[in-house]
Amino acid sequence: MADVQLAGAWRAKVVTLFPEAFPGVLGLSLTGKALDMGLWALETIDLRPFGMGRHMNVDDTPAGGGAGMVLRADVVGAALDQAAEGTPQDRAEWPVIYLSPRGKPFDQAMAQRFSTAKGMTLLCGRFEGVDERILHHYDVEEVSLGDFVLTGGEIAATALLDATVRLIPRVLGNQTSTEEESFSDGLLEFPQFTKPAVWNGLAIPEVLQSGHHGKIADWRRAMAERLTKERRPDLWRAYCARHNRDPVEDQEQ
Amino acid sequence: MADVQLAGAWRAKVVTLFPEAFPGVLGLSLTGKALDMGLWALETIDLRPFGMGRHMNVDDTPAGGGAGMVLRADVVGAALDQAAEGTPQDRAEWPVIYLSPRGKPFDQAMAQRFSTAKGMTLLCGRFEGVDERILHHYDVEEVSLGDFVLTGGEIAATALLDATVRLIPRVLGNQTSTEEESFSDGLLEFPQFTKPAVWNGLAIPEVLQSGHHGKIADWRRAMAERLTKERRPDLWRAYCARHNRDPVEDQEQ
Repeated sequence: MADVQLAGAWRAKVVTLFPEAFPGVLGLSLTGKALDMGLWALETIDLRPFGMGRHMNVDDTPAGGGAGMVLRADVVGAALDQAAEGTPQDRAEWPVIYLSPRGKPFDQAMAQRFSTAKGMTLLCGRFEGVDERILHHYDVEEVSLGDFVLTGGEIAATALLDATVRLIPRVLGNQTSTEEESFSDGLLEFPQFTKPAVWNGLAIPEVLQSGHHGKIADWRRAMAERLTKERRPDLWRAYCARHNRDPVEDQEQ
Repeated sequence: MADVQLAGAWRAKVVTLFPEAFPGVLGLSLTGKALDMGLWALETIDLRPFGMGRHMNVDDTPAGGGAGMVLRADVVGAALDQAAEGTPQDRAEWPVIYLSPRGKPFDQAMAQRFSTAKGMTLLCGRFEGVDERILHHYDVEEVSLGDFVLTGGEIAATALLDATVRLIPRVLGNQTSTEEESFSDGLLEFPQFTKPAVWNGLAIPEVLQSGHHGKIADWRRAMAERLTKERRPDLWRAYCARHNRDPVEDQEQ
């Protein structure tokens, strides 16, 4: 059965100096079960054996000076050539991603797009990054996890893979859950409560215990809208534009 | 030596259903060496033993209905109480963080702030999230890794810890590197190149081989500004405001 699945399964190839970082947390929980079931496949390509000389150097000093080291184009290129074997040339079918704070911010729409590809190659950076010529020559898509600096691309690649793999059919048991969750309508998620009804003197909001489905849905939407308006004016403006609403309306009216 | 370091070392406590996910990739590379050296410490608190009944249930169905399960306030509260032992009450000295797409987007300034605290507690969510009353009662700060959905908070916690720990003194060998890198001046990083001078017919830009430090610095700033303007209008506007520049100026002039 596993072999049958793998024949058409979504595949990830990760070029990294730390292959031991994978599957890591992706081997646990839902993504791990899906990996065991062959719903997706993960291959790491160790960058080190492509290194130069006796010390297998993968990096060198930046042209023009400056601190740190830059991954060499010839070394990374050889690893990407190996990763490309047996994959579609078309970047829509098989994106090649470089994790970098300079990239386009990763979001749920991107995860959706990646999950409908046949698979993808992820290049994990280290040090001061990779020689720019790699990005042009291989038509690499730069993707950023956010406006912060990590010690390397491995954690960003893991996050990107987790968000993508969970969208592959049958990875999540409960499909309803992905429909309702955060960002499905561009709003932050409404507050959730469960038993006990009273905890530390704090009660679950009355409406949620009313059994009145219409009122509950209204309350949840109002809460999601209020949270989004307060915390994420950027998402709020986009939501209002889609729904033909005035972003500065008084939502109590 | 290790004990001496640990006495005043930065400490992380992670409340999770997957303690085996830690240290994970944080145990490798620079963060791993720093962990071994006692420059920071990591403690996981398994949520499962705080579960209710024979099956140690940690979650229950959402009040008001809907798909998925919600982490119970009483269960999570007991774990957070244990995590709080021996930590400062003041949230400025010891932030308590819940990783959630509803939170404030994580950025480098937040990593800086966390790295100057004494340590922090991270609560990793699963399923449809945690009972809202936890967030109010424990004055929890909601932090988001980005506008995408992960199977759980563990990967987000790992990213947050990596970005924070690398800012702790002595974790990075080369301090210059953190000064120059992405976001230090709110600009995306300029392109980097290294040997060989020509690769696949592509040459390193001439200016970088000129040896003229002033021209190199000018070129790098111009490239960083152009990239930021093209890719991240949000960062570009903020940069221009700080530098009293017009964001729509023609930068070729």
